[in-house]
Amino acid sequence: MTALDKLLYQTNENKHVCIGLDTDLNKIPSSLKQFEDPTYEFNRRIIEATCTEAAAYKLNFAFYEKYGERGMESLRRTIEVIPKSVLIIGDAKRGDIGNTSAMYAASIFEHFKCDAATLNPYMGFDSLQPFLEYKDKLNFILALTSNPSSVDFEKLILNNGEFLYQNVIKKISLWDTARNCGAVFGATNITELKENLDLLKDIPVLLPGIGAQGGNIHEVVVTFKGIGKSDYIINVSRSIIYFDSSDNFADSARNELLKMNKIITQIKLS
Amino acid sequence: MTALDKLLYQTNENKHVCIGLDTDLNKIPSSLKQFEDPTYEFNRRIIEATCTEAAAYKLNFAFYEKYGERGMESLRRTIEVIPKSVLIIGDAKRGDIGNTSAMYAASIFEHFKCDAATLNPYMGFDSLQPFLEYKDKLNFILALTSNPSSVDFEKLILNNGEFLYQNVIKKISLWDTARNCGAVFGATNITELKENLDLLKDIPVLLPGIGAQGGNIHEVVVTFKGIGKSDYIINVSRSIIYFDSSDNFADSARNELLKMNKIITQIKLS
Repeated sequence: MTALDKLLYQTNENKHVCIGLDTDLNKIPSSLKQFEDPTYEFNRRIIEATCTEAAAYKLNFAFYEKYGERGMESLRRTIEVIPKSVLIIGDAKRGDIGNTSAMYAASIFEHFKCDAATLNPYMGFDSLQPFLEYKDKLNFILALTSNPSSVDFEKLILNNGEFLYQNVIKKISLWDTARNCGAVFGATNITELKENLDLLKDIPVLLPGIGAQGGNIHEVVVTFKGIGKSDYIINVSRSIIYFDSSDNFADSARNELLKMNKIITQIKLS
Repeated sequence: MTALDKLLYQTNENKHVCIGLDTDLNKIPSSLKQFEDPTYEFNRRIIEATCTEAAAYKLNFAFYEKYGERGMESLRRTIEVIPKSVLIIGDAKRGDIGNTSAMYAASIFEHFKCDAATLNPYMGFDSLQPFLEYKDKLNFILALTSNPSSVDFEKLILNNGEFLYQNVIKKISLWDTARNCGAVFGATNITELKENLDLLKDIPVLLPGIGAQGGNIHEVVVTFKGIGKSDYIINVSRSIIYFDSSDNFADSARNELLKMNKIITQIKLS
């Protein structure tokens, strides 16, 4: 089963929500601090409470690297408890010269056993190629991101009139010969999403920016329904995992996820 | 002493070579495999043999992350043996939304105690800002990289006629209010280096791509001498650390470094 198969298996069941495990020791219930690895304990409980209803988990590597070796161990242990049917996205936004990118790909796909990675396209094709050689994995390449400063470069206009991010999406499609590429498109850019459906229609899309950053699930689902597209994943981090700061956080996370799934299913089946 | 002070201290002594510790277990002498941490042992010997003559060490995070927790430990231990007078560059090419970049900055500057980082500008200012808030550190932002695929995006022409990488350099200069920004400019692009000296003249430049990738030290030093610029660092990895595959690798690395330093000093003083 390739990573794309996993994604389609989940999205065909109307599961589109990816839970972002942006786990921050300063934000988890203090009762977890008694455990040897509080980050892992928090993640394990979230995963056990949500894994039958989540399409994917996204591990933001920064939140683990911050704690060095100890954080890397929490990351590895977390990935080990995610069921095989759920897509695991290593959100590391890597990209470097070829021999270096090969090392990053080995780290994310082999050492940490992620199904998918996020990649930064700035350095061009040869910086992504070592990732694309893993034909059974998925590579979500940054196109238009959810942050305000996406205007600085991603929205620069090229001499042919298109935005830089549009050029990136076109190249992602060209490079997608093994059907293992996708695009990252921030859900905060709903106008641009509507304007670029033709470019995005044939590649899986990962949409961060829902919740704390201001994106809206309803608009994303309605927009993709309009073109009959179903191969997309909506990432939600803080507004699920930190919805409830009490010891009941995992059940509350599940309830929030179920609410989102209900909204999505109602729109898709309406 | 800020990171910029350290860089200027070294370059004013005509030391410009940064040794890239791209340490690969498959390329180091087999006699080191008896050690508990062969990567650290290799690095320690290289550092002890070269630290009085090197301007900087660049730690390519990918080569350590590949081995997960164990690699992170090798990275941390390596950094601990580098003398305080030599610049330590965490080559991680990070960049993400603000709260995530803050975690990456904490990882590179606080956990691993690097003096400098390499950053990817694609996501724009707010993705770099948490790094720039460390005013005593140095942030080398990717402008024009040394790999062939730099043509894919970095050399796209904007609607005002400039290349994307030129727009990046202009913004780096704008953002450099605390004098803690620099640019990465691949030494393989010597024509473009000559054409963009005016843009680069006021910010430190990190030049990878010498040696295995085809860049030439002589041309870089002559070019910068022409405008009286001295705040630049030339990275050399494979052609120093793997010059000699025998157990004499550290002395050979020192000899190669001394040869490069001699070329640089002769040009600068001629």
